[in-house]
Amino acid sequence: MSIYGGIEAGGTKFVCAVGSAPDDIRDEIRFPATTPAETIGRAVAYFKAQAKKCSPAAIGIASFGPVDPRPDSARWGYITTTPKPGWSNTEFATVLQRETGVPVGFDTDVNGAALGEYRWGAARGLDTFVYLTIGTGIGGWGMVNGALMRGLLHPEMGHILLPPHPDDPHPEGFCPFHGNCLEGLANGPALEKRWGQRAETLPVDHPAWALEAHYLALGLTNIIVTLSPQRIILGGGVMQQRHLFPLVRQRVQAALHGYIQSPQILREIESYIVPPVLGNRAGVLGAIALAETAAKS
Amino acid sequence: MSIYGGIEAGGTKFVCAVGSAPDDIRDEIRFPATTPAETIGRAVAYFKAQAKKCSPAAIGIASFGPVDPRPDSARWGYITTTPKPGWSNTEFATVLQRETGVPVGFDTDVNGAALGEYRWGAARGLDTFVYLTIGTGIGGWGMVNGALMRGLLHPEMGHILLPPHPDDPHPEGFCPFHGNCLEGLANGPALEKRWGQRAETLPVDHPAWALEAHYLALGLTNIIVTLSPQRIILGGGVMQQRHLFPLVRQRVQAALHGYIQSPQILREIESYIVPPVLGNRAGVLGAIALAETAAKS
Repeated sequence: MSIYGGIEAGGTKFVCAVGSAPDDIRDEIRFPATTPAETIGRAVAYFKAQAKKCSPAAIGIASFGPVDPRPDSARWGYITTTPKPGWSNTEFATVLQRETGVPVGFDTDVNGAALGEYRWGAARGLDTFVYLTIGTGIGGWGMVNGALMRGLLHPEMGHILLPPHPDDPHPEGFCPFHGNCLEGLANGPALEKRWGQRAETLPVDHPAWALEAHYLALGLTNIIVTLSPQRIILGGGVMQQRHLFPLVRQRVQAALHGYIQSPQILREIESYIVPPVLGNRAGVLGAIALAETAAKS
Repeated sequence: MSIYGGIEAGGTKFVCAVGSAPDDIRDEIRFPATTPAETIGRAVAYFKAQAKKCSPAAIGIASFGPVDPRPDSARWGYITTTPKPGWSNTEFATVLQRETGVPVGFDTDVNGAALGEYRWGAARGLDTFVYLTIGTGIGGWGMVNGALMRGLLHPEMGHILLPPHPDDPHPEGFCPFHGNCLEGLANGPALEKRWGQRAETLPVDHPAWALEAHYLALGLTNIIVTLSPQRIILGGGVMQQRHLFPLVRQRVQAALHGYIQSPQILREIESYIVPPVLGNRAGVLGAIALAETAAKS
């Protein structure tokens, strides 16, 4: 069995690990994301030390973004226009490749998490699914026809435009680019701005949640008619409110109004719209899944 | 060079042809779609006669729908729940396969047209694009990662939900399932119902067109952020109004508001949102492209 290295590169901390699967993580370290030189240097040093013990066949990086993950691009492996101070235009994956001498897989953190769920989690055995995170931002990525979505750049599903609800006290939404897009209507900060209190302090029976479920359901409806995914995984901080799941499922059925004649939507929606199963290990496992893919290609 | 057979199976007429490419259609016949037995029987007889002359290596069917194009389905090759009298639940592709003894490719008419544009037209060389027809209905299909989209069933991009425009005299839309979806706001019949006259009789400077372009642009914006296509092809009767193209392009740029930092959208949108190039031959050429794919697999 091959051993891989993984880097979960977050805006505040890095996690580096070696292993082959969720039940086989052999070593792991965490350190803060300071300057690019120091932080990437620590990752390089870690994998050089690990190489003497277990020889990882490849390294995967699931990184905060935006990144350039296009294999044919001259800037492949870079973190590009990030607002994180000092990190704009940072050479990343190529440094690891040069210093360790093994193949490196490189993608966004959410694409990594999607790949991890495909390999070991809620999307196992599917070829077309979407992984949506609802937190400070809303990001959606996934796989179509058995490969991670890419296209022109990459999906930005948080910015799907939605019809405002007549009972919304702020139907104009809060996205600085698009106002009433999914992110502008339903991310964590939108919940807080609309109701004047932090999302996690809103009681379960507060009308905030019905409206939140309504907007999430409209976003999912548009994703379903556009992509026809076989399953949708909803993660991120806002979805820690597990009571949202049944509300969202009901409203997706109502919004589609019987138009998609599929048993998965009409009768088995509990297994169609689901939480992720890898939980807070999704980042590093996604990176290991990216390494596995890089080793094969 | 291999020769293929193609059937453009429309709700009112069938076109059967043999050939290998747009400039190499060797024979073609057309006949009305009457009963399934008579119509499919004529197609079978045509290809049996052609087999003696040019031995098509495979036959492709680009059919009106809904159809079941899933290769692993027991009802693969059927026209399923169509409202066309007498055609519901019609065995189709398997009949051709049995009677002619060659491989048969089978898909929707719009997937066929998308594949034709990929093979010889506006989507040549791309791996992720969308083909949207705006006519009596609105249908969107396409390719992601180099393969036609399928997923759970198939995309239904006409039913993307959109925010109504404040100046729309009928913001509720006309879709019997969803009201204000793209189809309910922007198909040909919606234009006619909203303005009380047929779309083709509305002058170029009528406010109908600015509103039509607005809704099409919102639909395209949602498709762009969800799928990240490398190009969007707009066909169908409504898009015969070529003055819509620049209006739609401007409004897509306005709706995205600089968020997708891609030169194709920011500076080269004339070659990003385009008409199809195969025109009224798209149907039969799409069918031939489906045959070519079936022969290879």
